[in-house]
Amino acid sequence: MALMTKDDYIESLRRMKKRVFIMGQQAENPIDHPLVHPSLNACAMTYELAQQPEYAGLMLTTSSLTGKKVNRFTHLHQNTADLVAKVKMLRLLGQMTGCCFQRCVGMDAVNALDSATYEMDQSLGTGYHVRFRQYLKHVQEQDLVVDGAMTDPKGDRRLKPSQQADPDLFVHIVERKPDGIIVRGAKLHQTGALNSHEILIMPTQTLSEEDRDYAVAFAIPADAPGVLMIYGRQPSDSRKLEEDQFDVGNREFGGHEAVILLEDVFVPWERVFMAGEFAFSGLLVERFAGYHRQSYGGCKTGVGDVVIGAAQSLAQYQGTDKAAHVKDKIVEMIHLNETMYACGIACSAEGKPTASGTYLIDPLLANVCKLNVTRFPYEIARLAQDIAGGLLVTLPSKKDFANPETGPRLEKYLHSVAQYTTEDRCRMLRLVENLTLGPGAVAYLVESLHGAGSPQAQRIMLARLADLEEKMRLARKLAGIEN
Amino acid sequence: MALMTKDDYIESLRRMKKRVFIMGQQAENPIDHPLVHPSLNACAMTYELAQQPEYAGLMLTTSSLTGKKVNRFTHLHQNTADLVAKVKMLRLLGQMTGCCFQRCVGMDAVNALDSATYEMDQSLGTGYHVRFRQYLKHVQEQDLVVDGAMTDPKGDRRLKPSQQADPDLFVHIVERKPDGIIVRGAKLHQTGALNSHEILIMPTQTLSEEDRDYAVAFAIPADAPGVLMIYGRQPSDSRKLEEDQFDVGNREFGGHEAVILLEDVFVPWERVFMAGEFAFSGLLVERFAGYHRQSYGGCKTGVGDVVIGAAQSLAQYQGTDKAAHVKDKIVEMIHLNETMYACGIACSAEGKPTASGTYLIDPLLANVCKLNVTRFPYEIARLAQDIAGGLLVTLPSKKDFANPETGPRLEKYLHSVAQYTTEDRCRMLRLVENLTLGPGAVAYLVESLHGAGSPQAQRIMLARLADLEEKMRLARKLAGIEN
Amino acid sequence: MALMTKDDYIESLRRMKKRVFIMGQQAENPIDHPLVHPSLNACAMTYELAQQPEYAGLMLTTSSLTGKKVNRFTHLHQNTADLVAKVKMLRLLGQMTGCCFQRCVGMDAVNALDSATYEMDQSLGTGYHVRFRQYLKHVQEQDLVVDGAMTDPKGDRRLKPSQQADPDLFVHIVERKPDGIIVRGAKLHQTGALNSHEILIMPTQTLSEEDRDYAVAFAIPADAPGVLMIYGRQPSDSRKLEEDQFDVGNREFGGHEAVILLEDVFVPWERVFMAGEFAFSGLLVERFAGYHRQSYGGCKTGVGDVVIGAAQSLAQYQGTDKAAHVKDKIVEMIHLNETMYACGIACSAEGKPTASGTYLIDPLLANVCKLNVTRFPYEIARLAQDIAGGLLVTLPSKKDFANPETGPRLEKYLHSVAQYTTEDRCRMLRLVENLTLGPGAVAYLVESLHGAGSPQAQRIMLARLADLEEKMRLARKLAGIEN
Amino acid sequence: MALMTKDDYIESLRRMKKRVFIMGQQAENPIDHPLVHPSLNACAMTYELAQQPEYAGLMLTTSSLTGKKVNRFTHLHQNTADLVAKVKMLRLLGQMTGCCFQRCVGMDAVNALDSATYEMDQSLGTGYHVRFRQYLKHVQEQDLVVDGAMTDPKGDRRLKPSQQADPDLFVHIVERKPDGIIVRGAKLHQTGALNSHEILIMPTQTLSEEDRDYAVAFAIPADAPGVLMIYGRQPSDSRKLEEDQFDVGNREFGGHEAVILLEDVFVPWERVFMAGEFAFSGLLVERFAGYHRQSYGGCKTGVGDVVIGAAQSLAQYQGTDKAAHVKDKIVEMIHLNETMYACGIACSAEGKPTASGTYLIDPLLANVCKLNVTRFPYEIARLAQDIAGGLLVTLPSKKDFANPETGPRLEKYLHSVAQYTTEDRCRMLRLVENLTLGPGAVAYLVESLHGAGSPQAQRIMLARLADLEEKMRLARKLAGIEN
Repeated sequence: MALMTKDDYIESLRRMKKRVFIMGQQAENPIDHPLVHPSLNACAMTYELAQQPEYAGLMLTTSSLTGKKVNRFTHLHQNTADLVAKVKMLRLLGQMTGCCFQRCVGMDAVNALDSATYEMDQSLGTGYHVRFRQYLKHVQEQDLVVDGAMTDPKGDRRLKPSQQADPDLFVHIVERKPDGIIVRGAKLHQTGALNSHEILIMPTQTLSEEDRDYAVAFAIPADAPGVLMIYGRQPSDSRKLEEDQFDVGNREFGGHEAVILLEDVFVPWERVFMAGEFAFSGLLVERFAGYHRQSYGGCKTGVGDVVIGAAQSLAQYQGTDKAAHVKDKIVEMIHLNETMYACGIACSAEGKPTASGTYLIDPLLANVCKLNVTRFPYEIARLAQDIAGGLLVTLPSKKDFANPETGPRLEKYLHSVAQYTTEDRCRMLRLVENLTLGPGAVAYLVESLHGAGSPQAQRIMLARLADLEEKMRLARKLAGIEN
Repeated sequence: MALMTKDDYIESLRRMKKRVFIMGQQAENPIDHPLVHPSLNACAMTYELAQQPEYAGLMLTTSSLTGKKVNRFTHLHQNTADLVAKVKMLRLLGQMTGCCFQRCVGMDAVNALDSATYEMDQSLGTGYHVRFRQYLKHVQEQDLVVDGAMTDPKGDRRLKPSQQADPDLFVHIVERKPDGIIVRGAKLHQTGALNSHEILIMPTQTLSEEDRDYAVAFAIPADAPGVLMIYGRQPSDSRKLEEDQFDVGNREFGGHEAVILLEDVFVPWERVFMAGEFAFSGLLVERFAGYHRQSYGGCKTGVGDVVIGAAQSLAQYQGTDKAAHVKDKIVEMIHLNETMYACGIACSAEGKPTASGTYLIDPLLANVCKLNVTRFPYEIARLAQDIAGGLLVTLPSKKDFANPETGPRLEKYLHSVAQYTTEDRCRMLRLVENLTLGPGAVAYLVESLHGAGSPQAQRIMLARLADLEEKMRLARKLAGIEN
Repeated sequence: MALMTKDDYIESLRRMKKRVFIMGQQAENPIDHPLVHPSLNACAMTYELAQQPEYAGLMLTTSSLTGKKVNRFTHLHQNTADLVAKVKMLRLLGQMTGCCFQRCVGMDAVNALDSATYEMDQSLGTGYHVRFRQYLKHVQEQDLVVDGAMTDPKGDRRLKPSQQADPDLFVHIVERKPDGIIVRGAKLHQTGALNSHEILIMPTQTLSEEDRDYAVAFAIPADAPGVLMIYGRQPSDSRKLEEDQFDVGNREFGGHEAVILLEDVFVPWERVFMAGEFAFSGLLVERFAGYHRQSYGGCKTGVGDVVIGAAQSLAQYQGTDKAAHVKDKIVEMIHLNETMYACGIACSAEGKPTASGTYLIDPLLANVCKLNVTRFPYEIARLAQDIAGGLLVTLPSKKDFANPETGPRLEKYLHSVAQYTTEDRCRMLRLVENLTLGPGAVAYLVESLHGAGSPQAQRIMLARLADLEEKMRLARKLAGIEN
Repeated sequence: MALMTKDDYIESLRRMKKRVFIMGQQAENPIDHPLVHPSLNACAMTYELAQQPEYAGLMLTTSSLTGKKVNRFTHLHQNTADLVAKVKMLRLLGQMTGCCFQRCVGMDAVNALDSATYEMDQSLGTGYHVRFRQYLKHVQEQDLVVDGAMTDPKGDRRLKPSQQADPDLFVHIVERKPDGIIVRGAKLHQTGALNSHEILIMPTQTLSEEDRDYAVAFAIPADAPGVLMIYGRQPSDSRKLEEDQFDVGNREFGGHEAVILLEDVFVPWERVFMAGEFAFSGLLVERFAGYHRQSYGGCKTGVGDVVIGAAQSLAQYQGTDKAAHVKDKIVEMIHLNETMYACGIACSAEGKPTASGTYLIDPLLANVCKLNVTRFPYEIARLAQDIAGGLLVTLPSKKDFANPETGPRLEKYLHSVAQYTTEDRCRMLRLVENLTLGPGAVAYLVESLHGAGSPQAQRIMLARLADLEEKMRLARKLAGIEN
């Protein structure tokens, strides 16, 4: 089957029968809901750009499984060039949408499962890898959006899955049947869930033997029986419900997050990729986290480009772009943004093949990348707000501009540098508000902090990966200490 | 007249005839509009606490003008103890409301005008000071809320007032009459304008001779003919319009900002405190800014206490409060918050009397205070979001909790540590969202950046006030350099 | 007896018979040793300024014990004005010497012991306080330098005193006799030990019952039998031994640290202020640490003034002082320096009386002060090095300037802005080197980090003092959470 | 000719007749001077490792000019793998020496000149490129150390070369002769000058037509007639002159910097690579700076590994390595160090071929790399000092340990965790002192700040390279702004 166009993609979602609740009501057609539609546009951009010749080189590649042309979002990385291309593709999409376009979690999940199932099979004699590749061929050929689902509710953070008061606080196998398994639980923070064809479930942490039933990975259609999704609110989300969406800031694009409930969902064996092999849960989690920490060196720097561009635009519109301190702040924003990008590139360029042949990023540098992403977008956002000025949060509503009594007055008093219009100034202010305090801040700030693991998760990995013993040996040698 | 109770205050506002537009419509009774009402509650807290014995010592004091008991918000600082008490009062109110309570701009304006008019009269032989004190007696006796209004739209930032394409982009005198002046222009970012009895207008920057007509300071009733206010939107403000305001986070309290238009407003001479004395515009601006930069060492640390308390609560609710990295983050938040407070206290304790007898903060330290406030709340907010976790921005709406199909499911899956309820966890998440990404972030973050002048304004003052010559002399002496 | 002049002071030290080792050799006359002499000058400045009318108001005060005029370094703080004056005095001395002038540890120790002995007596019925005040009168009347000695070697940091392999790794009582006690142990990092008349020993941490013999505080003359001091090296210290001390940077002033060994030293009971009351060890340590953390808001900001002045001078000498980025760095240095000062002032202004009547700083703010001091001088030093340029560490030696072959060549090529001499430029470079990489960096950087307790010690105190319960209560109230 | 061994290299330097002044005296045999010898060892390591099989893959490569095996330090980068290998080689050498090993400036200079001469010839019809490659073949075949010399004294920073009071403050052509040119001037901060065979001179900044004679690049033997070098002092350098060099910290390795004077030096035309082509001065400077900014992502992270290893060792020796805050500081050090490395790798992996075929790093990312290097080593050093404790700057001298009276006492009192010796603890403290406050800090800190251009130089490049126009276009598109 051919790659889907944007329209094909949207149509394919419309054919699905997802059970979705949005703001307290079941949605007939979730992707057309105004709260969701901008996120559909963002995800659809991964199809749209793939059809455009100038981006095809980045967006498309040749499948290692089928030899056919596939969207890079469904591809297994075959070399470091693939890993680098992924980062560049994500930066491009961040630039184009100014938000989270949602499709990378699936890409990161399939790459992680590819090597993890291979190594699990090698070690335990299981047969997951062939099964997984079969599934992935289907994804590639159908050009599907896969929601890679990892984060369980986790209940009391001090307790293991089986120690929780409620056994369902982590997704687990409730029954093993001849033809498949029955699973129950929930996944939180599911980015773009409503725009997905498939959900690929993985465990959320390293598990030990008593939590064997929680060591489960599998794929289901996003509208499988027993699946229920609940939309998660975002700051200023209801501006998308207003008649004129001017005040949204980024009208065309956005993101969404959802809670996914799995209520005794049946998964046939051919879609099960781990079922009890707890000893490989940690490996799978680390592989996925590693890829996903790399991702943020791409997408967030793309959004960062938009934030910088918006700040510089406002400086021009307001006549401050030549001030030394404004120029210096813009340089600082660039510096921070490119530092994150450099980390994304570096962990890709230093990637290595796994046993399955699929390439893995350098895990130390990928964690370094993400740890910077938990800090720098916040400072970039602060600097953007500094340049934007207080009007960012005191600007009257679009309705006030539309009102014939107040509109002309606002027009008069908010006009700044002659050659730019008041409207353009206001549009740009709303964009910065969106990205730093509105729905865009969900992706640009809080997701930068918590997505792919909170900062402490990266710190734990750094401690583990940094080879302190070798560093101590170097120091002892120079200090003249024997042995 | 006696001090007003909270109810008196609200009643007094209801009697006013302000012309206010909110979201495109003229409001009949602006203070009862759900977008405004929380801000009324916050401002009313300055009356409410003054009636409570345990806070009266901080909230009330004896007027230096009348010898009668007055609310500290209308008081002229008589000594450093008054300056310190102001900071503590503001911290208390920040703790009680978790937002901006709006009344300090007026307090800072009257203190600034007191010494500025005195020195102006001494130097120029004008008669503003007596007139001003007469006005202030009225404010004290009526226990009024004064909106201290400074920031003009400023148009093209590179141009002086009279160079702008439109002469109205800074407030100015359009006509001088025997009984008063006619003024025109606008003031932006007017915190709490709708809750004010009075507006006290000051120029926004140092002016030179050609901008003489812009050197104007005066007081008007907030409902004077020709005054028009337009409400400024805030992130997630429309949640206040939802049936159940659970998702607002801080339901009872909030803030608001407005554009104030002055359309040929008449001001009688007894309410005019500067009219052309451009040489004193800079002094007045600096005095006001100095007091207001001190203020932020109080109010923002009070809100900071709430942010810290909310983060620590969430850590408890989620079972992470004993983790070393969480404890360390809480300590860092405390450290940053108390550093700002220390600067607020220091610039107060080092205050000095001005010629009029009214005490002024130490201007160098007040600028240091504010410059820290442009940075630290952002880091405190980031750390709070770190501790809160991703649910901060993926939590479904209150309507989903109310829906019988989804409510119990969310209840089940979002329950964490046994002894705390899911609802309390959600309430606390919404509070952190409010303070760091919602309407509360307007006051806690962006106002911290831009209120009382953007960071560069403080840096310019530091360069001017730091006595570099003396520091160079010290260095030369130690380096053994002759003179 | 009258207050000592600088010369009296030096003479009084010459009369002592301290047993001191410097660089492997016993020193006949330690204070005249060129490695030590600059530190003597710095300490002597506390006498010298006290004799100068313009500083007498700050340096001298009236003893609460005798009603006589005393040097403030021997005074018990009687009110917050005294606490504030202390900070200002320390800043002045930092400005005058550009280094550590050593006398504040004794001041902080006597203030701490005053209230601690009082409260200990109240609680336990002991009689230390009267005895201590008697001793302090002697110190005041003789105008002595007291070395407040706290830090024990501590051996293995994981073990308590009595658990250490060697019982002497903390100072302890080895014998109790009718007329006094015999003590043994060592104190590290003893700032200015060689310039002291007295040593006032305190325990270094909170102790429990099994470490009762380590709970000991007492005073001894610095040349008591059994006392031995070993000079601690400092970066570039041997430049002080070179013929021409040009390359030292700060030729006149410096600091020193020493190890003090106590080898079965006898202490008569009238000089013993704690002997086994382990329950009060923590209180005493906290009091001393609190005062000493306040101190750093004074002395280090004084040195900071010199660093800033030196950087600004170099910018002038090299023609970069008008560059926007240089001006901005100078402002940042000022900002950081004044933030520390503000914390020093704030914890003083918020001081409270203890039961003995002696005033104590606000402990929370004093810890905040010191925690900032563990960070900001490093950034100030980095910025100074940025402005100074690479010549800071590539400048040839003074001997090369003196050599007739190389001197004129260096003179030619290192000349910069016309009106300043090459020599002055070099002097200033050496001063910055001294303060950021040389002996001055011991006091300005490493002592800022570790003196009065390493950063983690402050963090532990912040966690303890911040009243998190109250902050959580505030958050719950705003979030609408019952109880 | 074969590659040189370490001994060959040292012998080859002994045969040279450099005119060198060290601490006021002309040195007979500079490389054997104890102040210089450690730096010789460091530079010699570039020969030594090249002979060791396990490092040969990194240290050696095949010349693109001769097809023969050459030391990578003399190689023209042929692809991104070469650029990446360079960074890894530099990190290795930083790890092995804990200091600056000096040979990369020459490597960076030859790579810069290769493409710059090519493009100059293409544009102007000059014939420098062939000449340059001929010269480089000689360097490769003789396996020489080249000092790449860029920084002129610059006099008054506000003035151009020809505007200076003294025309010699920038290196310039004083005479053009049939067989060559006569040059005069000086170069400051010449790292490793005394260990070099060759000096490769380049202009220090972009020049315009009136400074045509300053646009000069050429190579000379380091002992050419008219060349004179003066050693630059370093903090604590004279510890290297002490009998027992224990207190140096890093006894075997170090660095040095020198002033190089060129006093009417004759350069034959075949060694002249630019002589008046001012329009290409900027390009050459940028190319060199670009490569050199990449370098710091390698060498400084290697030294960083040593600093981290030393800190972790001290934590173990002192019993604090299990403390949560110490572990967290180590993680932070790793994070900062690897962020710099990531930037070094990224700008290499993203390198592109120049017209001459030689690969150039990505200039934006190389500037980002260096700008991080101007900050992070300072914070790493601060954290190392935090973990090390105050003994870092209060430790008595080795002579005190050797003295039979004081040695056993110090041994007793400075012993910490049982299984580690006091001596090892002291060695490690001296190593940290060396790297953060001693001679090692010259390379690790100040050179990180100023080498390859001070921070502002990188900021200017970031502003120029970041394509703000494109970022503004992206923002406008998302904001819905036409055009």
